Amino acid sequence: MQKITYLEKPVYFESYSATGGFEEGRGPLGKNFDFIDNSDLFGMKTCEKAEAEMARINLNIALKKKNLSPSDLNVLVAGDLQNQCVASSGGLFTFGIPFLGLYGACSTCTEGLLVLSAMLSTSKTYTRGASVTSSHNSAAERQFRTPLEYGGQRAPSAQWTATASGAFILGKEKSHIKITAFMPGKAIDGYTKDQSNMGAAMALGAFDSINSFFKENNPDEFDLIMTGDLGHVGSNILEDMLREKITRYGTKLASLHNDCGLLLYDFDTQDVHSGASGCGCSASVLASFILPKIERGELRKILFLSTGALMSTSSVSQGDNILGIAPAIQIEYEE
Amino acid sequence: MQKITYLEKPVYFESYSATGGFEEGRGPLGKNFDFIDNSDLFGMKTCEKAEAEMARINLNIALKKKNLSPSDLNVLVAGDLQNQCVASSGGLFTFGIPFLGLYGACSTCTEGLLVLSAMLSTSKTYTRGASVTSSHNSAAERQFRTPLEYGGQRAPSAQWTATASGAFILGKEKSHIKITAFMPGKAIDGYTKDQSNMGAAMALGAFDSINSFFKENNPDEFDLIMTGDLGHVGSNILEDMLREKITRYGTKLASLHNDCGLLLYDFDTQDVHSGASGCGCSASVLASFILPKIERGELRKILFLSTGALMSTSSVSQGDNILGIAPAIQIEYEE
Repeated sequence: MQKITYLEKPVYFESYSATGGFEEGRGPLGKNFDFIDNSDLFGMKTCEKAEAEMARINLNIALKKKNLSPSDLNVLVAGDLQNQCVASSGGLFTFGIPFLGLYGACSTCTEGLLVLSAMLSTSKTYTRGASVTSSHNSAAERQFRTPLEYGGQRAPSAQWTATASGAFILGKEKSHIKITAFMPGKAIDGYTKDQSNMGAAMALGAFDSINSFFKENNPDEFDLIMTGDLGHVGSNILEDMLREKITRYGTKLASLHNDCGLLLYDFDTQDVHSGASGCGCSASVLASFILPKIERGELRKILFLSTGALMSTSSVSQGDNILGIAPAIQIEYEE
Repeated sequence: MQKITYLEKPVYFESYSATGGFEEGRGPLGKNFDFIDNSDLFGMKTCEKAEAEMARINLNIALKKKNLSPSDLNVLVAGDLQNQCVASSGGLFTFGIPFLGLYGACSTCTEGLLVLSAMLSTSKTYTRGASVTSSHNSAAERQFRTPLEYGGQRAPSAQWTATASGAFILGKEKSHIKITAFMPGKAIDGYTKDQSNMGAAMALGAFDSINSFFKENNPDEFDLIMTGDLGHVGSNILEDMLREKITRYGTKLASLHNDCGLLLYDFDTQDVHSGASGCGCSASVLASFILPKIERGELRKILFLSTGALMSTSSVSQGDNILGIAPAIQIEYEE
C-alpha cells in the first residue's frame, strides 16, 4: 500500500491559466479558457513549436494575473508528451527560472503539482514556483500514430489529444485553494498493447491509486474524485471496478467520480470518440473549470488524479504492455 | 540568481550500485562496478529492453546490499534517454514502488537525487526511496543519431553514450554520506545545434549553476566540483569560463573541477573521442567511484552536477538550439 504525504503547511494556488486551440475553444469549457488560438499554431510554423509557444503564452498569463514576474518564481516544473519533452524546455527556458523536467505521460499535470509542493515544502528559501503542462493534437498524432495528412481512421475507443496547456503558480501566500496532501501513483500493467485504447490501460492505474488513498480517508468528506483522461471507456472500467472490488465504499467512490476527458468537448458536435486525452487535458480542465469552482467554495475538498499511459512507439512495437499511472493530490477550499 | 535549498535535516545514501556493459567493464572504473554484462544485452533481444533490464538488475543489487525489499521503499524516482522514458518505467514497474518519472536528459541522475531529497524531506511518513538512472549506447545511437549498423563516422567532439545505470537508495537512517543542499539548474541556450558537440552546449549550463552556487558558498570548503558528462571539449570550455569570468574564485573553481565523462573510459585504448556521456555516465561514476571515496572520508564535501542537453531530433531539425542544464547537489561526509 502507498503512503500518503499530508503537508504540514498547505501549499496555495496563487494563480492559474488555461490555454487551448480550436476544438478546445468551441468545447463546453472554451468560454472559461484564458486564451484560445483558433489556428492551433500560436504564430509558429510547426505544431511542435506551436505547443512550446502555447506553454510560453500560458505561463505569461498566469504570471500577469497576479502581477508577478518570472524572477518571482524560484522553480519551474514542467513536462509534455513530445520526445525528450522539448515543448516544455524549448517553450519555457527563456523565462530563466530554475527548471525541473518531468515525464509522467498524461499524468504530468498532477505529478508536477506534487513535485512542486514537495519543493516548496522542503525549501525555506522558496516562496513560489510554477508547474506547466501541455499537449498538442497534431504533434502527438504525428509522433505517436500517423501524421494527420495520412487521414487514418480512428477506433471508437480512441481519444482526442487536447491542444491545451495548464499553468499553475503555487506558493506560500494564502489563497482560497490549497494542496493539503499528495500520493505518487504506482506504474500498473494495463494488460493491453492497444494504442487506441489508452483509457482501458490507465483505468487500472487510477483504480490502484483511488483504492490506496481511501484505505485511510473517508469518501464522505470529498465532493469529487477527478481523473485526468480516462474518457468513456476508461471511466466505465474504473467505475465498474470501484463498485465491484471495494465492498465498503465502492458505490460511493464511483458516484463521486468524474473525468476531465469527458468535460473538454461536446460529444454531440465534436468527433472525439471516447473523449479528450493528453497532458493538456487534465491541466486545462483543472485551470478552467475545477479550480474556479473551488475558489468560489462550490467544491470544498477533492481528489485530483491525472492519469498517464507509460509507453512509446518502440516499447509497443517490441511487445510491451502499456502501463497506467495516476498520481494524486488532495485540493481543498480555504475560507 | 538561483536560490539554494539547504536541507534542515540531511538525507543519507543508504545504498548504491553501478551496473554497465562491455566498454564500461574494461574501463578504469570497471573493477568498481557491481555488475557488468559484456554482451551489453542483459539477456534481452533488443538494446532498448536491455537498458530496462539493466536498470532492474541494478536496483535489485542496491536493495540487496542493505537487505531491503522493494516494499521498504516509499517512492522511486527514475528517468532515462529513451523516448517517453520507457527504459525506466518498463524496467522498474514490477517492483511496485510508487513512481515519479523525470526527464532531465543526461542531468537526470542529479535531478532525481534532488527530487527524492525533497520528497523525503517533505514527507513525515516516508523513510526511504530510490533514484535510478540509465542509458544504453546502442539505444541512444539508434534513437538520436543512426543505428550502429550504419557505421557512420563520429566527429572528434562527439561523446560515447555510456551503457550504464546508477541506483541510489536515500533515506533518513544515518550513513557516512549525506546530501545537505540542492539547487535545480536553469535551462541555458547552448548556442549550438551540433548534436556531435553536446559538451559545448552543456558547458554553459554548468557554468551558470557553478557561478550561482558559489556566490554564497566558499570554494575553499570543497574538495571537488564534479560535472556529469562535459567530456574534454565541454570541460575545457567550462574551466576557461570559470577562470575568465569569475574574478575572485575562478582559478580555484577550475582547479576543483573534474568530469565524470573523463573518468569512465581509458582514452588511450577506448575510442570514445571527447569522453563518456548519457544518463548512466554520471550515475555510474557517482556510484562506482565518488560515493565510495566519500564513504571512506577521502572526500569531505563536494558539489555534484550532472549535465543535460535538452533537445530532440525534431527540435534540432526544426532549427532550435540545444539547451544545457546542470542541477546541483551538495554531498558531504558524515563521521
